[in-house]
Amino acid sequence: MIQRIAIIDLGSNTTRLVVYEYEPGYRFHLTDEVREVVRLREGMGNGMVLRAAAVNRATQAMRMFASFCRSQGVDDVIMTATSAVRDAQNGASFLARIRAETGWEPRLLSGEQEGYYGALGAVNATGLREGYVIDLGGGSAQIVEIRGGLPGRAVSLPLGALRLSDLFLGFEESKPSAVTRLNHFLQEHLEPIEWFRTRPGDRLVALGGTVRNLARIEQASLGFPLDMVNGYELAAGSVQEMAGRFWRMSQKERGKLSGLDPDRADIIQSGALAYAALLDHSGFDSITISQQGLREGIFYERFLAGQPHPVFANLREFSVLNLARNFEYNVVHSEHVTRLSLRLFDQLQAAHGLDPIYRELLWAAGILHDIGNHIDYYYHHHHSAYIISSSGLPGYTPREVGLVALLTRYHRKGSPKAGELEPLLSEEDQTALPVLSGMLRLAEFLERGRSQVVRDVRCHLDQANGWLQIEAMADGDASMEIWDASRNADILSRALGLDVELVAGVWLDDTIELSV
Amino acid sequence: MIQRIAIIDLGSNTTRLVVYEYEPGYRFHLTDEVREVVRLREGMGNGMVLRAAAVNRATQAMRMFASFCRSQGVDDVIMTATSAVRDAQNGASFLARIRAETGWEPRLLSGEQEGYYGALGAVNATGLREGYVIDLGGGSAQIVEIRGGLPGRAVSLPLGALRLSDLFLGFEESKPSAVTRLNHFLQEHLEPIEWFRTRPGDRLVALGGTVRNLARIEQASLGFPLDMVNGYELAAGSVQEMAGRFWRMSQKERGKLSGLDPDRADIIQSGALAYAALLDHSGFDSITISQQGLREGIFYERFLAGQPHPVFANLREFSVLNLARNFEYNVVHSEHVTRLSLRLFDQLQAAHGLDPIYRELLWAAGILHDIGNHIDYYYHHHHSAYIISSSGLPGYTPREVGLVALLTRYHRKGSPKAGELEPLLSEEDQTALPVLSGMLRLAEFLERGRSQVVRDVRCHLDQANGWLQIEAMADGDASMEIWDASRNADILSRALGLDVELVAGVWLDDTIELSV
Repeated sequence: MIQRIAIIDLGSNTTRLVVYEYEPGYRFHLTDEVREVVRLREGMGNGMVLRAAAVNRATQAMRMFASFCRSQGVDDVIMTATSAVRDAQNGASFLARIRAETGWEPRLLSGEQEGYYGALGAVNATGLREGYVIDLGGGSAQIVEIRGGLPGRAVSLPLGALRLSDLFLGFEESKPSAVTRLNHFLQEHLEPIEWFRTRPGDRLVALGGTVRNLARIEQASLGFPLDMVNGYELAAGSVQEMAGRFWRMSQKERGKLSGLDPDRADIIQSGALAYAALLDHSGFDSITISQQGLREGIFYERFLAGQPHPVFANLREFSVLNLARNFEYNVVHSEHVTRLSLRLFDQLQAAHGLDPIYRELLWAAGILHDIGNHIDYYYHHHHSAYIISSSGLPGYTPREVGLVALLTRYHRKGSPKAGELEPLLSEEDQTALPVLSGMLRLAEFLERGRSQVVRDVRCHLDQANGWLQIEAMADGDASMEIWDASRNADILSRALGLDVELVAGVWLDDTIELSV
Repeated sequence: MIQRIAIIDLGSNTTRLVVYEYEPGYRFHLTDEVREVVRLREGMGNGMVLRAAAVNRATQAMRMFASFCRSQGVDDVIMTATSAVRDAQNGASFLARIRAETGWEPRLLSGEQEGYYGALGAVNATGLREGYVIDLGGGSAQIVEIRGGLPGRAVSLPLGALRLSDLFLGFEESKPSAVTRLNHFLQEHLEPIEWFRTRPGDRLVALGGTVRNLARIEQASLGFPLDMVNGYELAAGSVQEMAGRFWRMSQKERGKLSGLDPDRADIIQSGALAYAALLDHSGFDSITISQQGLREGIFYERFLAGQPHPVFANLREFSVLNLARNFEYNVVHSEHVTRLSLRLFDQLQAAHGLDPIYRELLWAAGILHDIGNHIDYYYHHHHSAYIISSSGLPGYTPREVGLVALLTRYHRKGSPKAGELEPLLSEEDQTALPVLSGMLRLAEFLERGRSQVVRDVRCHLDQANGWLQIEAMADGDASMEIWDASRNADILSRALGLDVELVAGVWLDDTIELSV
């Protein structure tokens, strides 16, 4: 049953409405988003009263969101408010007004709840199992410890970027003395959080507009070839460098920083200083970016309601299947091509010597190789690659997403080339690309008639003499498949430096030992 | 109800299986295609017997197709055979074998039927109302007259490219005397077809691999910026030039022609000569390419079964709606944005002075502007443009498809630029691009809350003093929509050279006179 839910998150700087379409636990898709900059915290200072202009902006935005939901027929609406409302003396009265105007029951999240949901979003975006999640917003920053993939200890600190600009730096270039006071304030709040220190195997994941923009600024300066920030690793050194530079610039100068959303030109300097202090304190040497946070966390609680925890047991697997399901993939054919590809990978381990991680990328590419059909049958290999690069695969790094896209791109035609992805690829990636493409293509042609007539493959490898025989174990006439596979074995043959010959074999039940 | 049908067309050179998913009269989508080169006519010469090797290749392909359909659960299968089987003395016996092996009832099409279905496909691909359709395949060429959009008089001539190569030129470079004999043969067959002559207002449409490849060769040599052949106009002069050149080349040289499918390197020279003769005879000065033919014609007979004729009453409208439906567009929102855009177009006619054809492109872009959401919400304007360019819009020229894609690309963000499409655009196109983008963007922001609160617009134009006021006629609070539209009026303002101001107006029932 397809369901729809709207989630509204009223933050200190911006508010967003998102709409998800989903089948519980099975697939979901973000169908709409509306973002408004309301700056609810603006002018609060230490007085802790939501100001009239801010209240009016936020109320108007909520009214628009309510009429949005009404006209779209979405009646499952969750609205949350966070630090600005939490901190304000007139927060309850403000929420009462929202309730009266919209009919919703706004949920005012505590700092711990805010941290928990943000961490849920981040864990389900990155697959983090051990470490910490930072959610630094406009008003507050939440730090949440993650053990075994589940959120644990959490703290909420008054270190949001808008608040810091408001209290210390102002919105133009700043005086060194103001920066010193800000750094002192940061240390004061971080010192008591003794449990926030890196341990071996830990990763630090961060979410929110500030860190996303820091990553985009770094990507722009590096000429990063993918437009993808989820899973990106931002080096601590870069953060320190930006923290030392941005506060010296005017708002106008910052507004021209390539990669920066101009809306954030007046708070990015405070955010950079906050992240520098967080890294200093915890001892991590990089931050992995999560594109998901609070809203997604709230969504996952609903989406995964039937499971013991609102965390994907196997995020990487789910991401691939979710995308495939959203594009109504041909399950039987895709799984069979995947199975044959993996059988080749396993049996040819001695010939290619690739790390098992590539087996998983080959799996992903097998499942997704045909999703481009939804756009147009012709050139669907191009379209599959486009879709994968555009929507991303939570749990995979941008480099891995790019590799999966490349494998689908070359599953039917063409000579595998890294193209614009080249700067991201390791030497082993460069070796793997034609090997994996070659296997996927061979599997695709062995399953060309979509009938699974080639049930399995058996590889006979003679590396010393430079040849490989692949027996296509069929339970029917597979001569066309074998003929086409032979014509399409050139990629694999070149990649392995082996002559490849395809022969017909007879499939007997007992040869089967297939698993994806 | 979603239905599936497989259509198999066994031609003289290739055979193809296509699978369509469709809701009768409402939407359809090609989900699969398998192509085999079987060269059924090979070696037939004038003996008119299907040769053993050819029969075996074709039978094997049909077996594979049958197992394809079985395993995909498609039991609605139409299989047709054309000229090679028609001409062969052993054609009936061959079809009996196919029937025995597959369980299908093969339909052997007469030359007129072949022409009729090919013409149906072509008419529904190009919107041809008056003129002729040529379907030149491996064995035969059909010429069909089209009047009022419907196929009429038809003739089938033995002028297929494979047959001509087989009979006259051979497959390598040819002797001038052989070309002379071939040209004589062509003239002999065309002379009696007196009704095949251009009249004012007529267009010539052609389909099949030969003409498609001629068009692609021309596109490659011109650096044509779109990968799109349907609706492309190929000049008669180009055809004559290729006809005079290709027969002098060896097969290997032709194989390197950019744009040519290597499978056709040995028959393209005969095909070019045949088209040159067809153009000479009929007096047309260009050929419009149809990407659709026989298989599609057979499909449309099924798809449009409920209608008086198996031809779209309004192809351009259907193409846009079909694509929108395949991507599950938000009907209410998309239609409302379209309506507001068209209201702007109509009321600002004095300011922009654009040809009414642009109104239709604006309509198409309005309906399709959000289909990219299906790929990913973020950057969905890019994705919409990608989908439109990739799948095309039958009935529109490549240039028009490119323009519609550009309009969707700029419906939310960015400054409209023609980019790679520039070489195709006329001066009026260049003017229209920012005007139409500006209107679409304004409409999008006036419908930002997806609630249709802005029911209509009223433009007050003062060109003498350089300004334009747009009244947003709302039946509720539209202050956010008006505020956002004001911030996004810059594209339209620059395009028209007018200051643009947005003001709130009250919508009264009697102001409505909207139609898309």
